[in-house]
Amino acid sequence: MTARLSEDDLIARFFAPLAGEGGLGLRDDAALLRPDPGHDLILTVDALVAGVHFFPDDPPGAVAVKALGVNVSDLAAKGASPAGFLLSLALPDEWTEPWLAAFAAGLGEAARAFACPLLGGDTVRANGPLSLSVTAVGQVPEGRMVRRAAARTGDRLCVTGTIGDAALGLDLRRGTDAPWMASLAEAERAFLLDRYLRPRPRVALGPVLREHARAAMDVSDGLAGDLAKMMRASSVSAVVDLSGVPLSAAARAALAAEARLMDRIVTGGDDYEILCAVPEANVPAFLAAGAAAGVPAAVIGTVVEGEGPPAFWDEGGERRFKRGSFSHF
Amino acid sequence: MTARLSEDDLIARFFAPLAGEGGLGLRDDAALLRPDPGHDLILTVDALVAGVHFFPDDPPGAVAVKALGVNVSDLAAKGASPAGFLLSLALPDEWTEPWLAAFAAGLGEAARAFACPLLGGDTVRANGPLSLSVTAVGQVPEGRMVRRAAARTGDRLCVTGTIGDAALGLDLRRGTDAPWMASLAEAERAFLLDRYLRPRPRVALGPVLREHARAAMDVSDGLAGDLAKMMRASSVSAVVDLSGVPLSAAARAALAAEARLMDRIVTGGDDYEILCAVPEANVPAFLAAGAAAGVPAAVIGTVVEGEGPPAFWDEGGERRFKRGSFSHF
Repeated sequence: MTARLSEDDLIARFFAPLAGEGGLGLRDDAALLRPDPGHDLILTVDALVAGVHFFPDDPPGAVAVKALGVNVSDLAAKGASPAGFLLSLALPDEWTEPWLAAFAAGLGEAARAFACPLLGGDTVRANGPLSLSVTAVGQVPEGRMVRRAAARTGDRLCVTGTIGDAALGLDLRRGTDAPWMASLAEAERAFLLDRYLRPRPRVALGPVLREHARAAMDVSDGLAGDLAKMMRASSVSAVVDLSGVPLSAAARAALAAEARLMDRIVTGGDDYEILCAVPEANVPAFLAAGAAAGVPAAVIGTVVEGEGPPAFWDEGGERRFKRGSFSHF
Repeated sequence: MTARLSEDDLIARFFAPLAGEGGLGLRDDAALLRPDPGHDLILTVDALVAGVHFFPDDPPGAVAVKALGVNVSDLAAKGASPAGFLLSLALPDEWTEPWLAAFAAGLGEAARAFACPLLGGDTVRANGPLSLSVTAVGQVPEGRMVRRAAARTGDRLCVTGTIGDAALGLDLRRGTDAPWMASLAEAERAFLLDRYLRPRPRVALGPVLREHARAAMDVSDGLAGDLAKMMRASSVSAVVDLSGVPLSAAARAALAAEARLMDRIVTGGDDYEILCAVPEANVPAFLAAGAAAGVPAAVIGTVVEGEGPPAFWDEGGERRFKRGSFSHF
């Protein structure tokens, strides 16, 4: 390679322009964050590795959106409002300035869209594939974090947006052939691909969850597995009506071509929607407040006593999903 | 490989036992941190990659100490007291349970020693060498963060502990031959190696810096380069008396064998000591408070007007170090 930028130059050129007020221009040892009085901090970290969590040739801007989005999704699920993030970026030896410029541009757009400014970071040599880790910080009024383990028998289970799009988008991205793919319109394929590439964390739902939900988590590893996790953490079980799981027009079209796709839709992952348990009396207010915030949600089932995995019902009877939860290990 | 732990099992076995109160047993989407009223949060992130920042066969406990220590060192330099950390860990396919157990044990010890509990994390497949990224969070009373860019003409420059040990330890760790190595006693070699392997962040100095220093940063990329950075950020320059730079007995012995080592000592990096600018009137109180906190410090020079790189003086006259600062790029 030709002469490269120093780490300081790289930061000054690509990342300092993105830094929020607390980032101090990325020229100090650390970032500063003044929490709002009477607020708790919510912190989360997620790492992405090229070839594991995204394709090395994914658009750099989409990699940035995903890295920030999956973390902001965790904040939203806890009822938190984003306050900022730190980025740890490990670059392979063959990194290029155009890649980094596009990545930084995408990161800046995502930071603005999610109201989550860059506070600090570290850039290192990867000695392997590109990887990145984002730590996101959010705030909730003191004591108001929405927990995963707080669901109670009788609560209704709700999920935002539509489920399964990203899993189908990943299948399209992989380029394998399946009958359902040919049956979709080009716009439907593009929609599913985009749902895989660019998660849209439900930032606007944070305050709604604090107000109306009892327990919540984000759906990142598949609805079936994540629901099982939430129920186990809460020492309860669940009954889900599969016909109530909200699907996009594209997913419905795919499902019409191949009925077996329901498994993939419910276990696939990368949805970055919110799953929550809402006390029955709060359901109408929760749905109305979500809609007012631009986040549609649907009731998919009920929390029940028990310790077993959630039961999913469709016309054919009860189904249980073996694959608990997607894991990159 | 044989059947492996799931990510959840891995977290439950190795990391959940380390989690502080805000970590919620690592069983939620995110961690909770309630800042002390009237305090600012200080945040920093540093990544380490096997083969770049440490040797793949370094003791796993030392890798953990370094990953947490380099971050806690940044917090201390800002006058902050540690509040907790998040760990992002990317494991190569050939990871072993004994490695991870030793790593977790070392991480737990370091977390206790630095009073910095584990709050959360993410564990992923590295698809390359092991790498890890730590985000550490600290607190300072509102408005009291010690900045890097605040040094003023006339301030005295002070540095904690001893400089250059880790650089010499790295040379020993590399196993290359140099005349000075043979001239050291075994205990001296062991001391230098340990200084490289296990940074001891100056946690106790945080409150002392807040009280007495005007500007500070930690010395991680070499004293010469980091001083140049601090002076540039503050729009000033510096004059340093090389004979005043504090050296360990082992470094003195090495220097006695090879005078040219002074360059290595001053530019080598990985010291994780604190460099600070202290108003002249505060110097006696700063040194006394540091000593009382168990952190010895020495005066090495003075902040002067100007924009050039700091001048280092020894018996031979003025020396300037070309190599600004060590960078892994």
